[in-house]
Amino acid sequence: MTTQELIAQIHKKKSFLCVGLDVDTDKIPAHLLKEEDPVFAFNKAIIDATAEVTVAYKPNIAFYEAYGIPGWKALRKTIDYINENYPEIFTIADAKRGDIGNTAAMYARAFFEDLGFDSVTVAPYMGRDSVEPFLDFENKHTILLALTSNPGAFDFQTRDLDGKALYKRVLETSATWKNSSNLMYVVGATKAEYLREIRRIVPDSFLLVPGIGAQGGSLEEVCRYGMNENIGLLVNSARGIIYASGGTDFAEAARTEALKLQAAMTAFITE
Amino acid sequence: MTTQELIAQIHKKKSFLCVGLDVDTDKIPAHLLKEEDPVFAFNKAIIDATAEVTVAYKPNIAFYEAYGIPGWKALRKTIDYINENYPEIFTIADAKRGDIGNTAAMYARAFFEDLGFDSVTVAPYMGRDSVEPFLDFENKHTILLALTSNPGAFDFQTRDLDGKALYKRVLETSATWKNSSNLMYVVGATKAEYLREIRRIVPDSFLLVPGIGAQGGSLEEVCRYGMNENIGLLVNSARGIIYASGGTDFAEAARTEALKLQAAMTAFITE
Repeated sequence: MTTQELIAQIHKKKSFLCVGLDVDTDKIPAHLLKEEDPVFAFNKAIIDATAEVTVAYKPNIAFYEAYGIPGWKALRKTIDYINENYPEIFTIADAKRGDIGNTAAMYARAFFEDLGFDSVTVAPYMGRDSVEPFLDFENKHTILLALTSNPGAFDFQTRDLDGKALYKRVLETSATWKNSSNLMYVVGATKAEYLREIRRIVPDSFLLVPGIGAQGGSLEEVCRYGMNENIGLLVNSARGIIYASGGTDFAEAARTEALKLQAAMTAFITE
Repeated sequence: MTTQELIAQIHKKKSFLCVGLDVDTDKIPAHLLKEEDPVFAFNKAIIDATAEVTVAYKPNIAFYEAYGIPGWKALRKTIDYINENYPEIFTIADAKRGDIGNTAAMYARAFFEDLGFDSVTVAPYMGRDSVEPFLDFENKHTILLALTSNPGAFDFQTRDLDGKALYKRVLETSATWKNSSNLMYVVGATKAEYLREIRRIVPDSFLLVPGIGAQGGSLEEVCRYGMNENIGLLVNSARGIIYASGGTDFAEAARTEALKLQAAMTAFITE
């Protein structure tokens, strides 16, 4: 998917909502456990209920990998279902991969070609040759971890690397890499005050923002400091939407929560 | 596996060789492609041929993930085969994972419990809460990326974070985390001169050293600067062993190369 198609979808739906499909069989409604593939059954219902106001779906790959082969089957069915039924929706493999060149190329092929995701999250620690193989893919997007939403972000990311915070070095340095126009960045909403400075370094890039809701981030602050003229934001919510109800009404409850977030987002979108 | 068991195995085999099972179906002997599971058939033959002088096997997870579900089946058969037939051998899931707490816990369960690996490689960028869930597992080992063997290591790892190289901050900081005695570190052999300083910070930890052979590292330098009184090294070789021959004699050729490395290692092991 091109960035322009993503922007058009945001304006059409008046939403920059990303729904995190972090599906834990301990948390899904009990009646689904008798299905042949409970995780896919859950995802399908959530997707059908929320697609109208959602511009991106982000399965966290760990949650599928943890179930072994049945997990991978559920992941494949989920991405295939989105691509077949909602091809306009942007898909993110939240995998946070990072490895040397030839290995990075294997991961890129796995997520972009074999599974057919539009984007994948990647960790920056191993530097340029661990990221560029992902950037080679046209109309595919590499979402680099910059400033994450967890407490451990303060262990290294916010400390000064040669006089400037490591996460800023990651933004600056990665912008010099080949095909860097295919980069987006992960920036946690729990650190919205940092967004102003991030926008000085990467004014045009899309930012994937986790941490709204359960993790405490404020949508208003994210929009105030992080939005650019193309919106430039994908705001992720997972638990607040997908586990809004533990009963048979889970999909309807998810839709209600997604609609609330979309309504809040619409207020920040100017044509 | 306990660290003491690993050390005992090293002394018994007079070897600290780790064989990287980075298996690419484009590179394995053509006659294996008619097997039902060519990757597992290849691994089984390599393992049987090298186990006598090998103390650790390290499948690079990307190479399995790239093949989708058949890849995960081959990975599971491979780890099961090692655990059943060579339970004394240390196993490393080279996954380089790194994610927030609840997700890290999912990955830890997937690799330690579901698949039954002794250890997993983890990236440090997201800090403490992304690593500690792995450290919770008794007699399982978390191998943290410190200084990697690729050119991109110089993009961030070797630059000064608050006045000291980032990779040194990773070593120092991680040593303060809960259950840090379960940590080992990845240190690339192409930077053997750094090993002296690394040993000042983590004198007792095991170091997993990739980059010998194809990537240019010297075994002698690694031993001179990196060895401690418990040996404290696992030196990885992948392509130089597993692709030593592309013919029907591939397993015998792999054994020959593994024996050469073991003989070189033996010279550095004192009782």
